Amino acid sequence: MKFDVKKLRFNDQGLLPVIAQDHNSLEVLMLAWMNAEAVQRTVDSGKVTYWSRSRQSFWVKGESSGNTQNLVDLRFDCDQDCILVLVEQNGPACHTNRRSCFYTAVREGDEIELMQPE
Amino acid sequence: MKFDVKKLRFNDQGLLPVIAQDHNSLEVLMLAWMNAEAVQRTVDSGKVTYWSRSRQSFWVKGESSGNTQNLVDLRFDCDQDCILVLVEQNGPACHTNRRSCFYTAVREGDEIELMQPE
Repeated sequence: MKFDVKKLRFNDQGLLPVIAQDHNSLEVLMLAWMNAEAVQRTVDSGKVTYWSRSRQSFWVKGESSGNTQNLVDLRFDCDQDCILVLVEQNGPACHTNRRSCFYTAVREGDEIELMQPE
Repeated sequence: MKFDVKKLRFNDQGLLPVIAQDHNSLEVLMLAWMNAEAVQRTVDSGKVTYWSRSRQSFWVKGESSGNTQNLVDLRFDCDQDCILVLVEQNGPACHTNRRSCFYTAVREGDEIELMQPE
């Protein structure tokens, strides 16, 4: 079946959440948002392209930092309202220069920092 | 530092997205939502507990299906508006009886089904 971006279910702001996972290590790197055109641009270009809610503009990941995400596989979930991208991540994914944005764990009621900036 | 659920940033519906990842295989299983009390119940009970947007009620994953998620680690991201739970998943995570909700890939413009119901 041909994929049509219109089959995806966007929220009332026209966005859906996108999970980025390292295709090699399978580490979950970050969660960001796409609108329909960002999905299409990602599929067409192979460069993962989000919609920045703070800047209200397209955000080609790594365009300014150099920490690009090359698309390896794009998947969507059973109710078509979330995307998983497997990526080749160049450099750290997080703006704090950590590999992943998920560097804080909650263990026995305490916050534990799991990784340092690279 | 002690963790306080109030430090998390919920959206205007009082929710944040939660990624569930198999702690062994590192497969991304699903994305669902929690409010502050669901986060607290998850941490306190070790049973992953979401907020069902369709039913508008707490949803202890697997309570009716038996496909429970035991919490192995809970992490939050750099801007405190998304959670990653590493889980021990009993049975399939998806309501379609597939291991993961992300069973459809988009490859060269086509939809490809990656896994079958268990």
